[in-house]
Parts: sequence; C-alpha cells; structure tokens
Amino acid sequence: MKKVKIAIIGTGRIGKMHIENIANLREYFELVAIADSHNSELEKLAEKYQIPVFTKNYQDILNNKDIEAVLIASSTDTHAKIIIDAAKSGKDILCEKPIDTKIERIKEVLAAVKENDVILQIGFNRRFDHNFHKIHEYVAAGSLGDPQIIKISSRDPEPPSLDYVKVSGGLFSDMMIHDFDMARYLSHSEVTEVFANGAVLVDPNIGNVGDIDTAIVTLKFANGALGVIDNSRQAVYGYDQRAGVFGSKGQAFSQNDHLSSVELDDAAGGHLDKIPTFFIERYTQAYVDELKSFHTAITEHTEPAVTGFDGLQAVKIAQACLKSLKTHQPVVIK
Amino acid sequence: MKKVKIAIIGTGRIGKMHIENIANLREYFELVAIADSHNSELEKLAEKYQIPVFTKNYQDILNNKDIEAVLIASSTDTHAKIIIDAAKSGKDILCEKPIDTKIERIKEVLAAVKENDVILQIGFNRRFDHNFHKIHEYVAAGSLGDPQIIKISSRDPEPPSLDYVKVSGGLFSDMMIHDFDMARYLSHSEVTEVFANGAVLVDPNIGNVGDIDTAIVTLKFANGALGVIDNSRQAVYGYDQRAGVFGSKGQAFSQNDHLSSVELDDAAGGHLDKIPTFFIERYTQAYVDELKSFHTAITEHTEPAVTGFDGLQAVKIAQACLKSLKTHQPVVIK
Amino acid sequence: MKKVKIAIIGTGRIGKMHIENIANLREYFELVAIADSHNSELEKLAEKYQIPVFTKNYQDILNNKDIEAVLIASSTDTHAKIIIDAAKSGKDILCEKPIDTKIERIKEVLAAVKENDVILQIGFNRRFDHNFHKIHEYVAAGSLGDPQIIKISSRDPEPPSLDYVKVSGGLFSDMMIHDFDMARYLSHSEVTEVFANGAVLVDPNIGNVGDIDTAIVTLKFANGALGVIDNSRQAVYGYDQRAGVFGSKGQAFSQNDHLSSVELDDAAGGHLDKIPTFFIERYTQAYVDELKSFHTAITEHTEPAVTGFDGLQAVKIAQACLKSLKTHQPVVIK
Amino acid sequence: MKKVKIAIIGTGRIGKMHIENIANLREYFELVAIADSHNSELEKLAEKYQIPVFTKNYQDILNNKDIEAVLIASSTDTHAKIIIDAAKSGKDILCEKPIDTKIERIKEVLAAVKENDVILQIGFNRRFDHNFHKIHEYVAAGSLGDPQIIKISSRDPEPPSLDYVKVSGGLFSDMMIHDFDMARYLSHSEVTEVFANGAVLVDPNIGNVGDIDTAIVTLKFANGALGVIDNSRQAVYGYDQRAGVFGSKGQAFSQNDHLSSVELDDAAGGHLDKIPTFFIERYTQAYVDELKSFHTAITEHTEPAVTGFDGLQAVKIAQACLKSLKTHQPVVIK
Repeated sequence: MKKVKIAIIGTGRIGKMHIENIANLREYFELVAIADSHNSELEKLAEKYQIPVFTKNYQDILNNKDIEAVLIASSTDTHAKIIIDAAKSGKDILCEKPIDTKIERIKEVLAAVKENDVILQIGFNRRFDHNFHKIHEYVAAGSLGDPQIIKISSRDPEPPSLDYVKVSGGLFSDMMIHDFDMARYLSHSEVTEVFANGAVLVDPNIGNVGDIDTAIVTLKFANGALGVIDNSRQAVYGYDQRAGVFGSKGQAFSQNDHLSSVELDDAAGGHLDKIPTFFIERYTQAYVDELKSFHTAITEHTEPAVTGFDGLQAVKIAQACLKSLKTHQPVVIK
Repeated sequence: MKKVKIAIIGTGRIGKMHIENIANLREYFELVAIADSHNSELEKLAEKYQIPVFTKNYQDILNNKDIEAVLIASSTDTHAKIIIDAAKSGKDILCEKPIDTKIERIKEVLAAVKENDVILQIGFNRRFDHNFHKIHEYVAAGSLGDPQIIKISSRDPEPPSLDYVKVSGGLFSDMMIHDFDMARYLSHSEVTEVFANGAVLVDPNIGNVGDIDTAIVTLKFANGALGVIDNSRQAVYGYDQRAGVFGSKGQAFSQNDHLSSVELDDAAGGHLDKIPTFFIERYTQAYVDELKSFHTAITEHTEPAVTGFDGLQAVKIAQACLKSLKTHQPVVIK
Repeated sequence: MKKVKIAIIGTGRIGKMHIENIANLREYFELVAIADSHNSELEKLAEKYQIPVFTKNYQDILNNKDIEAVLIASSTDTHAKIIIDAAKSGKDILCEKPIDTKIERIKEVLAAVKENDVILQIGFNRRFDHNFHKIHEYVAAGSLGDPQIIKISSRDPEPPSLDYVKVSGGLFSDMMIHDFDMARYLSHSEVTEVFANGAVLVDPNIGNVGDIDTAIVTLKFANGALGVIDNSRQAVYGYDQRAGVFGSKGQAFSQNDHLSSVELDDAAGGHLDKIPTFFIERYTQAYVDELKSFHTAITEHTEPAVTGFDGLQAVKIAQACLKSLKTHQPVVIK
Repeated sequence: MKKVKIAIIGTGRIGKMHIENIANLREYFELVAIADSHNSELEKLAEKYQIPVFTKNYQDILNNKDIEAVLIASSTDTHAKIIIDAAKSGKDILCEKPIDTKIERIKEVLAAVKENDVILQIGFNRRFDHNFHKIHEYVAAGSLGDPQIIKISSRDPEPPSLDYVKVSGGLFSDMMIHDFDMARYLSHSEVTEVFANGAVLVDPNIGNVGDIDTAIVTLKFANGALGVIDNSRQAVYGYDQRAGVFGSKGQAFSQNDHLSSVELDDAAGGHLDKIPTFFIERYTQAYVDELKSFHTAITEHTEPAVTGFDGLQAVKIAQACLKSLKTHQPVVIK
C-alpha cells in the first residue's frame, strides 16, 4: 500500500485525535508535519508522535512539496481560506465540517477545489459508523425497497458552554448539521423542504443567547420520502445516536451501543450497561475508517466518500431550518 | 366482585371480539344481550355464548331496566345517537372510537352524558397495552423528569380496502387518531399545534380517492414538549407499534413484541421471529384490560380511564392535521 | 369443529386453571363435569362455569357414557389408578405429569392405555410454549443442522414449602422433570446417560429434609449430542425459563419474556421490565395450546403431542439423576 | 506517566498484534527490541514500527540492562525457559498462556519468579473483555449475592488445522483453558472438581488424531457454586463467547457483540448483524487493556491482574478434565 505523506493543521481536541489515529495508521500515512498558530505545546506534541515538522504557520506546510495531503481541524472561520490555499498548492484535503457558514463562500471553495483537481473530503465522520453505514448499505442494496420514512435521533450528553453556544451558529448549524448529512446519506436522496420546531427545555440561558436546545425537524426528500430528526442538547443517559429507514420492503434501525452487552437481573427488574457519553468514544472506529477512506480517495484519485457538495448541502438545510424556525413556515430548499 | 350486567350493540369484527372477552370475564360481567340490525347470524352467536337476549333493535336493550351498561361497537355514524340514547336511559357506556367526526356533535354527546351522569369510556384500547402503559407510568412516576420529546411510530401491516378508505374519513381520523390519543396519554399534556406532512407512497389508488398513506406529523404540547408521529398504511414486516418519551431525567421507549424471543444464528447472521400482523393479536390483553377498567369505572362510579373529553381531543387534533395538510401550514389547536 | 365433551378430575390450583381454559375454548370443548374428593366448594365452582355435573367420586364421570375425555389434575399418587380406570371406560385422557414415580407402574398404565386404544397425553405444557416450540421447529426444519449441544436453564422464583418438598420426590422428579422432557423435545433424540451435580445453596432446610435446591445435570443423547440443564429453586428476579440448541448449521436460543418491551434509560444506565414470577402467568398461552392439541388428538384419533412414552422417559431420566447424585457417577439410561 | 521500556519475544500472529498495540500505547511503553529465532522478516518489522533493536537471540534482550519488561509470545514449549531466564535477569514478564503443560515445570517457573521478585502476568486476555469484566465486577460488588451457578459458552468459528490439533495438547489445554480461567475469574473462587463429557461431532479427523471437538464440563467450586462450560470447535455463525453468573441476589449474563446494532425487519422476520469471527477482532480492546494493566503492575510493582498462580490453576483444571474424560469419572482438584 502506498503511504501518503500528510500534515495536520489545527491541533485542538479533534486535531489531537486525528494525530493519534494517523500515527497508528502506519501503513496508510506518514505524518510529516503539524501546524497550529496558537498551541504552545506544539513541539511536545511533535516529539510524542515523532513528527519531523511543526510550525505556527500552515503556509510552511503548503509550501512543502513533499506533503501530499492536509487534514484541516482548525477553527471553522479559517476552513474556507485554508482549503482554497491548500487546493492551490495541490494538496488533497480532509476538512472538518462545516466548510463555511455562508453558501457563497462554500461555492468559492468548491470552485477552487475543482479548478485545482484536488480531493476534498468533509469530516462527516458518522457516515463511517458501523451502525449508520449498515443502514445505508441496506438501502443501497435494495433490502428495504423504496425509502419512505427516515428517522434520526441525535442527542448530546450535555450542552456545550454558553460561550461556545454564542459563537456556534446555533443548534441547526452546529449540531443537527450532522443529522442533515445523515438524512441524505441514509435516504440516498436530497432534502427538498423542511419544517422546524424548536424549544428551550434544557437551559433557559441557551434561550437567552438566542439559541434553542431541543428541536424536531420534518423533512421532505426528492424521492418522495418523508423524514424527521430530533435533537436535544442534554440526554442524561449518554450520547444518544440512532437512526432508521422504513421502506416498501422493510425497515432497518439501529440502537445505541452499550459499554457492555451484560444484562443484570435482580428483584427490581433487568439492567443494562450505560451508553457512551463522549463523541470520540462513540465514534472511535468511525474516525479511523474516515481516514482509511480518505487514503483510498487520494491514492486512487476517486471521489471521496463525503464530498464538498455534501458539505454544501448540509449547510443549505441548516439555513433553511433556521428560516423555518423564525418564520414558523415550511421552507423549500432549491 | 360485583358482576355488571352488560349488552353489546354491534357484532362485527370488533363486536365479536368484545363478546368473547366479556364472556370470559365471568367475574366481571354478565353478558345479557346483543343487538345488531344487520347480522343474520345473531341467534347463533347468542347461542354460542349463552346470551339470553338478542335483538335487531338496540332500543330493546336500552329499555331493559336490568342492563346496567352497554358496549357500542356499531358503525361510526351511529355512535353519537346510540350514546345519547343510552345516556338518557341511564346506561354506562363503552364506545369504540371515534364518538363522531364532527366536533359539535361530539359536544352534544358529552353534554348528554354529563346530564345523565353516566360513565362514558372511549375505546382507545392502546392505553391498556403493556408497553405503552409502562411508558405512561414512568412519566407519571417522574422517572423521566419533564417530558421533552414524544415519539410514536404506528404502521399498519397492510392498507384497508379502497372502499373502506373512501368512507374512513382519511388517515388522520381513521388511523392516526389512536396516536393522537397516545401522544396525550404519554405526554400527560395537551396538543396545542400540529404540522402535517403526508404522501402517497404505498398505493396510488389511495391518492386517487383523496387520501394519503404515509404521514409525519409534528406536535407541540402545552407543557412545552415537542412530538412526532409517523404512520404508514403498509409495513410489510407486520403491525409496527412503538413509542418513546424523552425527558429531563431519562427516556423510555418500547420495542415491537415478537412472536417468540428466539434468536437464530446461522452463517448469514442473526434472525428474530416475526411481529404480529393483526391488531387483535397485538392488543389481545389490552382489550381485556380495557374491559376490566370499564368495570372499575362502573362499579366505583369513577372517571373512566379514557373519557369522552379524550375522544373529543383526538378528533380535534385529527381535524387540525387535515387542515395543516391542506394549507401546508402549522395549525394551532384551541 | 367437533365439540368434545370433557370432564376434569381434580380441582386444585392447576385444575382450576384448566377449568377456566376449557370453559373459554367454547368451540373445542363442552365442560360437562368436574370431580374432586376434597374440594368443599365444588358446587360453587360448577355454578360459576355452568358445569352441569359435579361429584366427589370420579367414577361417576367414568360411568357417564356421554363424556368422551377426562383431564386428570389430581394429586400425583392418584394418577396411575385414574388413568387405568379412565382407559378401561374408553375415555381419552390428558394427565398432569408425572404418570407415576415408579417405572413399573407407568408401564402398567401404558399397557392399559394401549389395550383400550385411548389417547393419553401427558401435561408437559412447556412443549406448547411459543419460545421452546420455535426452537423445536428450527431443529425439525433442519435450520440448525445436526444438534450438538442442548442447554436448558430453569429456575423457579421461590422454593415450594418444606412440607411440599418432603413429598415432592425431590428436585429431579418434581422440577427438573420438565427439563428432561424439554431436552428430548428440543434434541429430537433420547437421553442415554446423565451425570448430576447437586447442592443446597438456597435454604439449608431443604437439605435437612434430604433434597437439593440447585443442580447441574449433563446429558448424553443417542444422536451424539451433549446437553446440560441447570435448576435453582430460587431466582429472585423471576421465573427463569430459557433454552438453546447449537448445531452444525447454527444455533437457536430463547430469552425470558419480559412484562413489557420498554427500556428505560437514565443516568444509571438502562433498565428493563421484570419477567413473570408465576408459572401460570409465564405459560398462559401454552396451557391453552396444550388443550387445543389434545382436542386434535381426540378428534383425529392421532398420537398426542406428548405421549405416555414421553411421560415414562422423563421419569427414567429423573431416577437416573437421583442415582448419579447418590453414587457421584455417570449413570447410563437404557 | 512513566514509560516502560519493553521488548517482545516471539513475533508470530499474536506477537505481531502485541507489537501494534504496544506501539500505539505511546504513553505507556517504549518498544525497544523484538526477538524471534525464526522470523526472516524481523528487520522489516522493526523498521515499520521504528524498533531500534531486533535479534534472533532473546538473550540479547535479557542482557540489555535498559529493558525493563518482556512480553513472551513465542511457542508454548519455550515459555518456561524464557520466563525463568527473564526473571533471573530481573525483567517483568507478560507471557502468553500456558506457562507450560507440566505442573512441576510451572512450579519451577513460579519459584524463579518469586525468587527474583519480578512481575509475571499471564495472557488470559478475556479477563479484560468489557463483557466478562463487567460480570466479574457485579460479582465483586455483591450485586449478585453469593454466586451459585456459573455458565460459560465458548465456541470457535472453525477448527484449527489438523497439524495444529496434533500438537495442541487437546481441547482442554488449548481451548477450554481460557474458560477455566474465566470460571475462576467470574466465580471469585477455586474449582475443586470437574466432570468432562467430550465428543467428536465437527470433524472425525479430529477424533482420529486423539482429540475431541465438542465438550461439556461441569465444575464444583470451593464456595459451593456449581458451573458448566461448553466448547465447540466450530460455530458457523462466528466466535461465540458468552458467560453468566447466577447468585442469591440476581444474575448477570453477556450476549455476543454484533458487528452493528442494526435490526432489519422484512417480510421474513427480523435480522441481526453477524458476530465477529476472529479472536483478535473480538478481543481488540481487551488486548490493549491487558497491556495497560501490565503497565500498572510494573510501575506500581503490584500483583498483576492475572498471576502465575492463575496460570497454574488453569492447567491443573485442564489436566483434571483430561483425566475425567479418560476415566469417565468426576475428578477432584487439590
């Protein structure tokens, strides 16, 4: 297998996880550089993973002809510029979601990617989850017939900090965006209309800064199917991630993974183990498989499993939901 | 235990099931009469269950001072008149849903019931289901904290005949009405607004006669919770009946009952037994428990488990959904 | 369908359950008589179920030419004599297990049944359970290939009274006898050897009266398969009844039925509903299906689903286990 | 955290897996050397993982004062000598099971370990499995009360090669030995007696070389509990690994992990995903956690999670089973 020389831009929580995963994928990647303009412990990190190059300036990485690919895990507001710069320097790109919060800017990004004929994969990691991927496969294989009803439940174990909520772009852009991509992934179709109900049921402070913490969104799809997504910022029992597709030949739905399969029966009834409470714990293998998939796209120069167009569509749906919430009307997506 | 002298009006499919159940509840009821204006085998039926009186005219039953209660299982268009007549003759009443399709007429019925101080219980049998009742109890006990998200899936194994669809009043009034009641039952709150999406995905003929066969309805509740119901007229895997409530302290959700608990593992994977495909098979015990509950209401002269008001509310929600579907707007329920 | 005129001999706990079930199987049976030499409330019972004849002397029933079949639910020590008497009077017979505790006596019974060409069905009700029957069917259909390992767990919710334990014949004859029949039923083969381990872990008083309360028995089958049964007199979480067959093409195993399918998730983990704690609650439908099966054997004069030979074999295995426990040696069954 | 300098002796299938895991545990270990007398691609392996030292002679490793610990994954017949040599050179040791096949030799090994005051941990990886560990914890916490019945099912997806079977020491020593350790681990007690049933049901060739491929072993424990283990060399549905403990206050049992949680429902019933078919896939995380546990034992110089005594006991039980199989008698273990 060809080893791809890769660099990582952005070394926050997600960036660090990617460093660990890439370092362990010895046969797939050679991690040759990391960049971060803020991280004061960059050298230490480089040392730990025996990464030859570390720099505050990501341009150093783009200028390095040896590096074939970059993984962008910096803050959202920097994504668009770095992608465009990386595309111009001919690097293949894996970028965390979202590309940008503005549709026009995303289109500029996609144009640059196209012009420079580089790979751009978006970090919708859940597509690589064993449960969701299995449902997707059942639909693709026709096991469910025509998809008619798509259902997704996605609930975080606890709300982010208020400071984060303020700059997050709101529940639809920050949290439900994963589910919009999942809806497209599971239905094998496009969302054509949304109607959004939102509420502040978890923490009034979230409402005070102009966001919601609970939402149910109904969807219409181009293939005629109907769908629904529910989100909550706080599921006290853990990180609740489930989906199901109902079709003309059957249905497929996933359950939450539990930390063990053990059932305890006592005089009070049956008891099951907890479910994960942290997204990295829940999607451990998905993040690894995302990287393997990126490796394939690079080495075979094929369309990645999650394209820039996928990144664009999810943002479009999120903006339609926000409009629906504000107008209390269904909103068509073109 | 006091044995209640009861009569059954209407001996179609549901009526026959009630006869069987009441006959077996020997300590609760004495089944003294049946009435049906159409059934040509009424005498045979009376003989089989050793029922002393059978008649084409339900007035015979109402005139019988010995009879304390009636169960109305005749066609929908006769419900209102029979309830009013029965109330006037002082009988306690268990009536299949819906009371009527018109709000004003339902109000007249409720007024008659109130005036004559008789028990009126509506046949929302699913409230007595072991799964749904358990969720209801968890909410009542506070185990889930404040309800925030209510989800109901309800899918029939196959569509009714087109002839039936034409006179059914439509999916919302005929099928989803059970789920509207369930939504109120599980949330312990009132529905204040709906938004309905509908589609014809199962059979174009259903669309041709002006109905839909697939629907997703989102709900708002007086207590602030959000909800969603999905319906399909055709689940090829059986009679799919599930619900869940998510709240501030946890969630409770039910699965479909399978015909056995056996898992078969072979080289192709794991295999589970089928789920029931017939509503009487699925709700066997619920229909029995419904009768026991009616017995309690009669003998203790207490409010029944499903009141006339419950019957009214479900119809109101159904009508709001129909309006939402037609206007493609959210509709407030007063 | 032909209605069979039947009488019940013995009206204790099990007898009463059979009365209720037979009374409800209106199209299958006409319950014309009950007999019990001890029950002081026999008349009341007859009245409740509108049974024309009640008598202290079961011979009255055998003398009644109208009665075609008898169900024997009297105490174990009376089974053999009543079966022989009933066979001589030409009645078809359903008898609760065991036929007798002595092999020779059972053989006399079987001879009488054969001589008089009547149906004798033994009350191993668990063969009619939805879970165990499904496994049996999978084996019969070849879905599991050749059976290789048979596993049965059978645990009572609580020990019987010490007075009962004293006269019960011991755990193998009284409790595990059901599992011996189940082992034969699921394996479709005969048990050829046993090795029994027993212990007193639940209540020392059970040991003081010469019995055990916990046991694991390993089995060899004529078809080469191996098996194991475990029993406990006290499972605090309910009536634990599970089995599994492993074969060359796969395995099938059952789980306990829960009172509902609801899963509650809270901060402590997941929680399931209880399982039944009473054998009549667990095997409600099995007892009904046992009667339907008996009806078929009578009206078609075919071999019953559980034969006298099945009754004999289970007692043989129980006695071999007792011998194995005492000698601490494997015991061959001929 | 202190990084332990470690070397691996033996680089076959298991050895390679340990190299990968240790290389990824960057904060726990520094993998400084590998040794293998047969592997012709040792240099390549060292290069891939950037391991400074590779050698055909494990003595080079023992002579290296820098190395603090060794992981022994060489062939079984070399274990005892290497452990003794490593102990004499003061290295802490993690050795794959079994220590040796002879009790006396194992005792020599344990003596050497004690004399040199080094850590010896045995590679019973299943103790670190999320499912089995959870049951162990429930027992330790008293959630199940006194353990009364221990049940273990352990079935391989397919038999090893006949060549392997010939030198494996037989099913008890090679395969069920893991379950003997599991029985002790779950019961928190010692096995005092066994009775073994064995059969050749999978492949007659296995019988021809003097081994069995199917077995059920019953156990008695020092704390009074009874137990049973069943093994098959061929479960066509995958690598079947389950256990359960039943006690005075309840039971805990595990299910097989499936590759996904997705349930597919179609007209034929429900369908579940497959279970793993490879032990490394099934115990991926357990092997990692085994290493972490070894790290703790080394750095805190505490008793390892699996001691040399545990290794001794499992071999003792295996030998007793072989004797029981041959004599067809229960065998006491002293």
